[in-house]
Amino acid sequence: MLLALDAMGGDRAPGMVVDGAELALERFPDLRFLMVGRESALAPLLSRTRRLKERVEILHTDEVITNDTKPSLALRSGRGSSMRLAIDAVRDGRCAGVVSAGNTGALMALAKFALRPVPGVERPAIAGLFPTLRGESVMLDLGANVQCDARNLVQFAVMGEVFARTVLGLTQPSVGLLNVGAEDQKGNEAVKAAAAVLRAAEGVVDFHGFVEGDDIAAGTVDVVVTDGFTGNVALKTAEGTARLITQFMRESFRSSLWAKLGYVFSRTAIARLRRRVDPRRYNGAIFLGVKGVVVKSHGGTDALGFANAIGVAVDMGLYNFIDRIQSQLARLPEELTVAPAAVG
Amino acid sequence: MLLALDAMGGDRAPGMVVDGAELALERFPDLRFLMVGRESALAPLLSRTRRLKERVEILHTDEVITNDTKPSLALRSGRGSSMRLAIDAVRDGRCAGVVSAGNTGALMALAKFALRPVPGVERPAIAGLFPTLRGESVMLDLGANVQCDARNLVQFAVMGEVFARTVLGLTQPSVGLLNVGAEDQKGNEAVKAAAAVLRAAEGVVDFHGFVEGDDIAAGTVDVVVTDGFTGNVALKTAEGTARLITQFMRESFRSSLWAKLGYVFSRTAIARLRRRVDPRRYNGAIFLGVKGVVVKSHGGTDALGFANAIGVAVDMGLYNFIDRIQSQLARLPEELTVAPAAVG
Repeated sequence: MLLALDAMGGDRAPGMVVDGAELALERFPDLRFLMVGRESALAPLLSRTRRLKERVEILHTDEVITNDTKPSLALRSGRGSSMRLAIDAVRDGRCAGVVSAGNTGALMALAKFALRPVPGVERPAIAGLFPTLRGESVMLDLGANVQCDARNLVQFAVMGEVFARTVLGLTQPSVGLLNVGAEDQKGNEAVKAAAAVLRAAEGVVDFHGFVEGDDIAAGTVDVVVTDGFTGNVALKTAEGTARLITQFMRESFRSSLWAKLGYVFSRTAIARLRRRVDPRRYNGAIFLGVKGVVVKSHGGTDALGFANAIGVAVDMGLYNFIDRIQSQLARLPEELTVAPAAVG
Repeated sequence: MLLALDAMGGDRAPGMVVDGAELALERFPDLRFLMVGRESALAPLLSRTRRLKERVEILHTDEVITNDTKPSLALRSGRGSSMRLAIDAVRDGRCAGVVSAGNTGALMALAKFALRPVPGVERPAIAGLFPTLRGESVMLDLGANVQCDARNLVQFAVMGEVFARTVLGLTQPSVGLLNVGAEDQKGNEAVKAAAAVLRAAEGVVDFHGFVEGDDIAAGTVDVVVTDGFTGNVALKTAEGTARLITQFMRESFRSSLWAKLGYVFSRTAIARLRRRVDPRRYNGAIFLGVKGVVVKSHGGTDALGFANAIGVAVDMGLYNFIDRIQSQLARLPEELTVAPAAVG
């Protein structure tokens, strides 16, 4: 499998990208990379690697889309950028997918423009994996669409279900709509109308009903569906809470001699705990609903995090989930998806 | 100070209410309570207490608003209910505030109806305190209003600022609007329009700008303002994440003999950590924007949690923040608060 890497995206690019690719080879030794970026920066980094340099082809460009580039500008004038050329390599069938740690808005805009949405998808979404009490779950949208109507939410539900079924290999993934209560009358118009459609669309999605914020970490459902505003806030609130508790834990273990001694004995256990909630393990957000595999790495991640994002792209490249999204969307009764009540 | 307690609200009422009131006396020995509920249930519970029974007056009623009662029904036919009679005692000036662990929607509806909103407040909101890296912060709305326009958000900002200044005693509380990014062009129409108003309303609110989900636990601002849908999801996501990490921690400390030994030494430190993130310590959501002190306790809490909610009501009863909300709202330039662009 050949993956395109936007070698210039991310706070610590291109070093982090090269190191991440090398790390990814340990898990996927047959992987090859098309690294798009400044050759003068990439060549010396690659010359220091052992196995990696034989598995990399450099596609040179000097142009880079920065983090403060607006998506509209990236579309108009980013044609020669590392991000765009990497996406084009997927569009042309040369690469099985693309990974970028660059500007999220620009990546989504370019992916939609160059790869096109899957037929039936009005708005692609960003999905991510979360650790839960029962394993892991998928949540979408994490920020691509700040305002969503019921139709968007229904499409997210179908896309998330297909992802969980194919890429995660779940037999009958359950889907929940994020809301402020479990009762039917709770929530805004968009979630109420989306729930009505999903309840009627039996056989396409195993709809659990409404879930609340604490159901995300509880793992109540396999797929959590929400608009991009709420999803983004929930994602970052969870990250912030994890950081707060880790910091409180650190302070606790420094609070007395006994605690310090306890820490010495518990070291391995604490390291294990840290690993379980390490955001790098969950790095790699998935663009669902475009005709190609696009994975967005966190911009501030390191080589380990980037290697995980590459792993997500590999997993996605192995399965034909795009056609299935299209065929499942087509199974939604038309009157349900376009009902006026469905517009929130 | 005399507080009205809805003695029948909450999963473990009335026992939890009586025990919570007794616990609260340890911190506030001069407090007195008007307990509204079934006398035949309350009298035997009170007869077992030492100090408490002398400080309690029972207002008998058999009527109870249950958790599945719709707010509209509670308004129409809940006139003799324990919740309504407790609120009426505040309205009549007999009690300094009311605490209930009952149905949130009904409590808000009855509080708005019986106490009336503060002039200038279109929609009262639910506020809560959170632990942060820097101490604690206030967030609102936590679920009273699932759809909010820019005007509502601006009013929440003013109400939250006044609460932080008077009840929490902060000199110049900073206020942030919850969004999906810090840049001006990010977010939905409501937050963008609200930010424009708050930026122009210098001198009324110290507006920090947009904050993101991870800023809540970081304590970036003293007051986090958001709509009731997002705020409710964020609150519950944080609770769920805290529970997940606590569970992971428990599993880690059971994972080996060394870890178990470490746990023995670290016991006090771990107990200290648990206390810091104990949701009961943060129990007591505040109804801001009604003319009276109304505190909502979590329905599933125990005596310790209910005692904390009573503490919140006492703190609020000591300060005249209601008049200040009204006067600060009046300081907002009228054209800003009613600008058509401000409607999201």
